[in-house]
Formats: sequence, structure tokens, C-alpha cells
Amino acid sequence: MTENCLFCGIVAGTIPSQRVAENERAIAFMDINPATRGHLLVIPREHSMDLREAAPEDLIAATLLAQSLVGRVIDRLDADGANLLSCIGADAWQSVFHTHLHVIPRYKDDPLQLPWHPTPGDFDAIAATATELR
Amino acid sequence: MTENCLFCGIVAGTIPSQRVAENERAIAFMDINPATRGHLLVIPREHSMDLREAAPEDLIAATLLAQSLVGRVIDRLDADGANLLSCIGADAWQSVFHTHLHVIPRYKDDPLQLPWHPTPGDFDAIAATATELR
Repeated sequence: MTENCLFCGIVAGTIPSQRVAENERAIAFMDINPATRGHLLVIPREHSMDLREAAPEDLIAATLLAQSLVGRVIDRLDADGANLLSCIGADAWQSVFHTHLHVIPRYKDDPLQLPWHPTPGDFDAIAATATELR
Repeated sequence: MTENCLFCGIVAGTIPSQRVAENERAIAFMDINPATRGHLLVIPREHSMDLREAAPEDLIAATLLAQSLVGRVIDRLDADGANLLSCIGADAWQSVFHTHLHVIPRYKDDPLQLPWHPTPGDFDAIAATATELR
């Protein structure tokens, strides 16, 4: 755990999150600034700055968890697809410097463009979606 | 190998590509419609439609190869970062239905937006970049 890291706080539970799934080395929780309905973040429990620095076993755990969640958003949220995205470096749109994979559900004709402009989602709606995904 | 799959043809070598790196279960080659200089595609040798359907060992091999290439584009092309992107489904911008991970080098103040509009890059420039990355 690294002090002052938002995502390390989420792993530790000192910062609240809507956790949806986890395995031994990674956790998945709702993005509070969702690009689309059901937007998830998957992170290794162990701190690393970005994907380049993640230990292979942590990256593998996060990737397999993300893969299972891609299936889940399509099955449970009736999404038509999904994007898996990781941003390495501020010039690649990274804003939290703890390795993370975005799982972004996609819906036919949704207007998603990247970079998106993060704006807070509705808390109750996000919580309800988290329940659908657990 | 699946007939009529472009990327299966690239794995088999019946369709030409600028291959940059490989491991037992995955290969990496230059995207001929680069979003930025050094844009790579990493694919499992084994056919699957998209990331959701990829066998875990294939996804792991592709992810670890992509991770090493993120480091390589930053080190060798003087990129300032990178994006790792996978598109699952046509509604998520997937256009070739063989699992692939994009490794997109990023450069300070580059104008990248997604979806990008694929346009053929200069063949000689792509070949020269491939040489830098091998």
C-alpha cells in the first residue's frame, strides 16, 4: 500500500467503493465517473504506477478478472459490447497512478468518444448497477 | 486457423505483416492504419472472435507481450505513454473478429481521439518503425 494513493485506499477499504468482484490479486469496482452505464475499474491489490510497472502475476489476475467482467456486463446489463482500456502515463489520459483497466460496457449507438470528460454519475444508479453485476 | 480471417492469415504468414515480437501463444505486428506512430496489434495465434472468447492462456500471453511492448514503444520511440485497448463487438469499434489488443504509443499533445478513423499509413515509415521496435 502506498500512502495517498486513492486506489490503495479502495483496496484497503479506507476509501469507500462499490466493489463488484475480486480474486486473490485484483479487485473490480464501479467507476464513479462512468463513461457508460456499468463502467468498471479493475486494479491489482498491489500498488504499481501503471501497467508497465505491474508484476506479471498482478497484471494476469487483473486481466482475467476484467475478461470475466466483460462477459458479465454483456450478459447482465444487456450491453452490446465492451472496451478494455488501460492508460499508461498522463499523456495517455491516465489520472490515477495505480495500474487500472477500464471495462467500459458499450451500447448500440452510444455516443462514447475517448478521451471522455469524467463527470460524477448518479450514486443510486451506480449502486443499483453494482448489484446487478455482483 | 479460421478461413477468411485476416489475422489468422497473418499468423500463418499467408498474409504479409511487419511482425515485431512474438511468444509461444501470441504475435505482435504493426497496424497498417496507425492511430499514432508505432501503433501495434497483439493477437493470440489461436483464433477467437474477441477477448471474451479467448482462452485464458492465450489472453495471458497476449497481455504479457503487450506489456513488454508498452515499455518498448516508450523506450525506443520516445513515446510519452501508451494506451492498451481491446474492442469487443462491432458496437465497441471492433472491425476484425480475431481477438486483438491495440498498443497505441502516445506523444505529448498528440491529437488522438477514439474512435479514430483508420487510414493507411506510409508503408516505408511503418517498416522503419518496425525495425526500431524489433
